[in-house]
Amino acid sequence: MTQQPIMPDEEEPYFDSVDGVQSSTTLADPELLEDMRELVAAHATAALLNILADLRSADIADILNQLPEDDARYLFELLPPEEASEVLLDLQDSMRESVIEELTPHRISAIVEELDSDDAVDIMSELDEDVAEQVLDTLEPDDSAELRELLAYGEDTAGGLMATEFPEVHVSGTAQDAIEAVRKTAEDTPDVYEVYAIDEDGKLRGIIDLKNLLLVRADTPVSDIMDSDIISVRTDVDQEDVANVMRKYDLLTLPVVDEENRPVGIITFDDIADVIHEEAQEDISRMSGIMDDTDTSSSIWNIFRGRLPWLLVGFAGEILAAFVLSNFEDAIGKVLAAAFFIPIIMAMGGNAGIQASSIVVRGLATGELALSKTFRRLLRETGAALLLGSALGLLIFLVVFLWYGDARFGLTVALALLVVITNATIVGATVPLMLDRMNVDPALATGPFITTSNDALGLLIYLGFLTLIYL
Amino acid sequence: MTQQPIMPDEEEPYFDSVDGVQSSTTLADPELLEDMRELVAAHATAALLNILADLRSADIADILNQLPEDDARYLFELLPPEEASEVLLDLQDSMRESVIEELTPHRISAIVEELDSDDAVDIMSELDEDVAEQVLDTLEPDDSAELRELLAYGEDTAGGLMATEFPEVHVSGTAQDAIEAVRKTAEDTPDVYEVYAIDEDGKLRGIIDLKNLLLVRADTPVSDIMDSDIISVRTDVDQEDVANVMRKYDLLTLPVVDEENRPVGIITFDDIADVIHEEAQEDISRMSGIMDDTDTSSSIWNIFRGRLPWLLVGFAGEILAAFVLSNFEDAIGKVLAAAFFIPIIMAMGGNAGIQASSIVVRGLATGELALSKTFRRLLRETGAALLLGSALGLLIFLVVFLWYGDARFGLTVALALLVVITNATIVGATVPLMLDRMNVDPALATGPFITTSNDALGLLIYLGFLTLIYL
Repeated sequence: MTQQPIMPDEEEPYFDSVDGVQSSTTLADPELLEDMRELVAAHATAALLNILADLRSADIADILNQLPEDDARYLFELLPPEEASEVLLDLQDSMRESVIEELTPHRISAIVEELDSDDAVDIMSELDEDVAEQVLDTLEPDDSAELRELLAYGEDTAGGLMATEFPEVHVSGTAQDAIEAVRKTAEDTPDVYEVYAIDEDGKLRGIIDLKNLLLVRADTPVSDIMDSDIISVRTDVDQEDVANVMRKYDLLTLPVVDEENRPVGIITFDDIADVIHEEAQEDISRMSGIMDDTDTSSSIWNIFRGRLPWLLVGFAGEILAAFVLSNFEDAIGKVLAAAFFIPIIMAMGGNAGIQASSIVVRGLATGELALSKTFRRLLRETGAALLLGSALGLLIFLVVFLWYGDARFGLTVALALLVVITNATIVGATVPLMLDRMNVDPALATGPFITTSNDALGLLIYLGFLTLIYL
Repeated sequence: MTQQPIMPDEEEPYFDSVDGVQSSTTLADPELLEDMRELVAAHATAALLNILADLRSADIADILNQLPEDDARYLFELLPPEEASEVLLDLQDSMRESVIEELTPHRISAIVEELDSDDAVDIMSELDEDVAEQVLDTLEPDDSAELRELLAYGEDTAGGLMATEFPEVHVSGTAQDAIEAVRKTAEDTPDVYEVYAIDEDGKLRGIIDLKNLLLVRADTPVSDIMDSDIISVRTDVDQEDVANVMRKYDLLTLPVVDEENRPVGIITFDDIADVIHEEAQEDISRMSGIMDDTDTSSSIWNIFRGRLPWLLVGFAGEILAAFVLSNFEDAIGKVLAAAFFIPIIMAMGGNAGIQASSIVVRGLATGELALSKTFRRLLRETGAALLLGSALGLLIFLVVFLWYGDARFGLTVALALLVVITNATIVGATVPLMLDRMNVDPALATGPFITTSNDALGLLIYLGFLTLIYL
C-alpha cells in the first residue's frame, strides 16, 4: 500500500490529480481509490471511518461510483446520516438507485431530515410509492406536509427545483428585522443569500442583498436597501426556461412565486448548473440516438435498452433505402460504378443534415434562436448548402472524371450531390423547427431520424438523376 | 403599431413570452422587437431612449442580436457607457465583433471602465492589438496595469475567468474589520459574496460567509467565523476543470490563488454557467462536424467555412469507401442485391459508433469517466454491442430471407451486421479515449471521423464476408 497523505500539510496544500486544484481536505484520486478498495475488501471499518471523516461528500460519492455495488453499499452504511445525505445526492443515478434500494425507511428518514427541502424532494421522488409513504409517516408532521406539497410539483419545474427555506421581511420593516429573518433561516440551512421583502398581502416587493444589510445602520428602512427590480418565476415554469433566465440575466438566485406573486421558494445557482449540464447531456444523447438516462456507469442491459430503439428506427429507414435501391436494380446493373458512390451520397447528405440540425437544436434549447429569426436562418442555411454542394460537387466531378474518363457520369454524380446536400441541409434545419412548433423536443428526433430519412431521400435523388440524365 | 405596456402595472406583473417568467421591467418579446424595428427605421431617437431606459441589458442585447447590423450599431450608439458595457457582454459573438469594429478607442475605454475586471478582459481580448494598446493607454494607469496582467492569463484559464475585486481581511482581525473590507470592495463592484482571511504571508487561510458576518458581534475574531475547509484553484487551471470543480462541490464562488497560495481573484457561478454551456456547445458542434464558433447568427460564409473541413474529411473517407467497393466489383456484379444492403450496413455501423462515442466524449468532458473505469467501460460497450448486433442481425436475416428466400445470403448479411456493429462500437468508444490520452479534444475527431472510418471498415467487412462465405 502506498503512503497516502490523509491530513494535508498546513503549509503545502494537497494537490489533486487535476494539477492546480487545491483543497484543505483529501481529494479523491486513483491512489486513494486503490487504498479504499483494499480496506473495503478487508472490511477495515476503523481505518475507513478515519479516511471518510476527512473527505468531502462529493469525493466520497466519486469513490462509491467506482466501487462494485456491494462494496459501495457497505461503505455507504458506514456514513453518519448528515454525510450520507450529501453523498446520496452526488452519486450517479444508477448507483443511487442501487444504494437506495437497500436502505430501510428508517434510515431514509434520517437522511431526508438532514437535507434542504429541494434536495429532500429529489431523494423522495426516486423512492417506490409505498416506501415514500412509510418515510413520510416517520417524519415530523411539519416536514412531511412540506415535502408532500413540494412532491406535487413537477420534477422538472421551478417548484421542483426550489428550496423553501428563505428569509422574508415586511417591506415596512428595518434592516434589523431583515437580519433577524436571516438568523431564523440560518437555523434551518447554511445557504442564505438574500432577504425577500413582502407587503401586507404577502406579495414580493423587493430583494435585499446580504452585503447591503452589512453596510447600513440597523434602523435603515427595508424599502431603502431593497432592489425592487425583480425577476421571478412561477412554480410551473420548466427547468430549462429557469436555467435560460438565470443564465441570461446572470442571476445568483431566483425567487419562485405562486399565482398571487407571493414568494414560495428560492432557486440557487448550483441547481441550475446541474440543469444546464443535464439538458446539454440530454440533447447530446438524443441527437446521438440514445434514449433513457444512460451514463458512463450504466450496465450492459441498460446500454442495450437505451440504444436499441433508435437503431430500430434507423433499421426501418435503411430497409426503405434497400427498397429504393432494388427499384433501380436495372440502372445499377447497367452502371455498376454507380453503386460505388452510394456511400458518399449517403454520408455527405447525413453529415450536412446533422450539421444543420445540431445548430438549430441547440439554438432552440438555449433560446438563442428566436422564432422571429427562423426564416432568415433557413435562407442562410440554404445559401450555405448551395455553396457547400457546389464545392463538393465540383470535387466529385473531378474524381469521377479522372477515375472513369466519363464527363456525363461525373456531372450526374456531381449534380446529385449538390441536390442531396441542399435537400439534407433544409431537412436538417426544418425538422427541428417543425418539431419545436409541435412542442416535441427537437433533439429527440433529430439525430438518427434526420440521418435515416436523408439516406432514403438522398438515394432516391441520386438514382433518379442517374436514370433521368445518364441512362 | 400595437400597444406595448412599457411600464408594468404595480399589481399585475408583466408576463414575457415564456409564461410564468415575471419581471418588474419590460422583457424583450416579438411585439416589442417589431416596434423597435419601426422606430429604428424612423430614427425616432427620443422614443427609443425612452424604451431602452426600461429594458435590462440582456434584453437590449437580445433585440440587437435580431436587428440588421447597421440598425444594431445605431441603437448601440444611443446607449450610455454603463449600459453599453453590459449589453456588449450579452451580444452574440458575431454581433459583438461587428459592433466593436465600429467603436472608437475612446468609446471602448469608456465602456471598459464600467466593467468588472473579468468582463473588461473579455472585451479587451477581442480587440485588434493596436486598438487594445490605444484603449489601454487612455485608461487610468492602475486600471491598465491590472488589465495587462489579466490579459497575460490564457482566456480559457481560471486567471482569465476571475474577477480581481474581492474583500480580504487578516486572519487575526475581527468581524468589524471584515465588514470594512466588504465596504471598500463594494465601492468597485456590486458583487460581493464572501471575505478571504489571509495570514501575514498573504496566504489564504479561510473564507467568511457574509451571512455569518451579519449574525455575530462586531468584535468576534475572524478565526471564529471563517471556514478553513477551502477549495481553490491556481490561475492556470483550465476553465473546464474549474467548471467541473464548482459543479462537483456545489460552489457559489471559488478563490483563485497564485503559486504561493495567495488569493488573486474570485470566480463566480455566472462565469461558470457560461463555461458549462459553451463547453457543451463546443462538444456538440465538434461531434456534429462543425468547426469554428458558428452560432445561430453566423453569416453564410461563416457557416460554409465552419462546415467544409469536416465534409472534406468525410469526402476523402467515402472516396476510400468507393475504392473498397470498386475492388469488389465482381462480387457486386454477381449479387446485385448485395448493393441494396450497403446503406443499412453503413447506417447501423455509423449510428452504433456515434452512440458509443458520445457517451465516452461527454463522460471525459465532465470528468465522470475516470481513467480507472475505462477498461470496464470498454468491456460493457463490447457486451452491449454484441447484444445489439445479435438482435439486429436476427432481424436482417428475417428480412433478407423473406425477401429473397435465400438463407445463406441472409446469414451472410446478418453476420456482417453483427461484426460491423461490434467493430463500430469498439472504434467509437476507443478513439475518444485514445485521443484523450494524447491530449487531443476527443469531441473534435469523434463525429464525422468515426462515422467515416466506420463506413469504410464496415463495407470492407460486409463485402469480405460476402466474398468468403457466400460466393
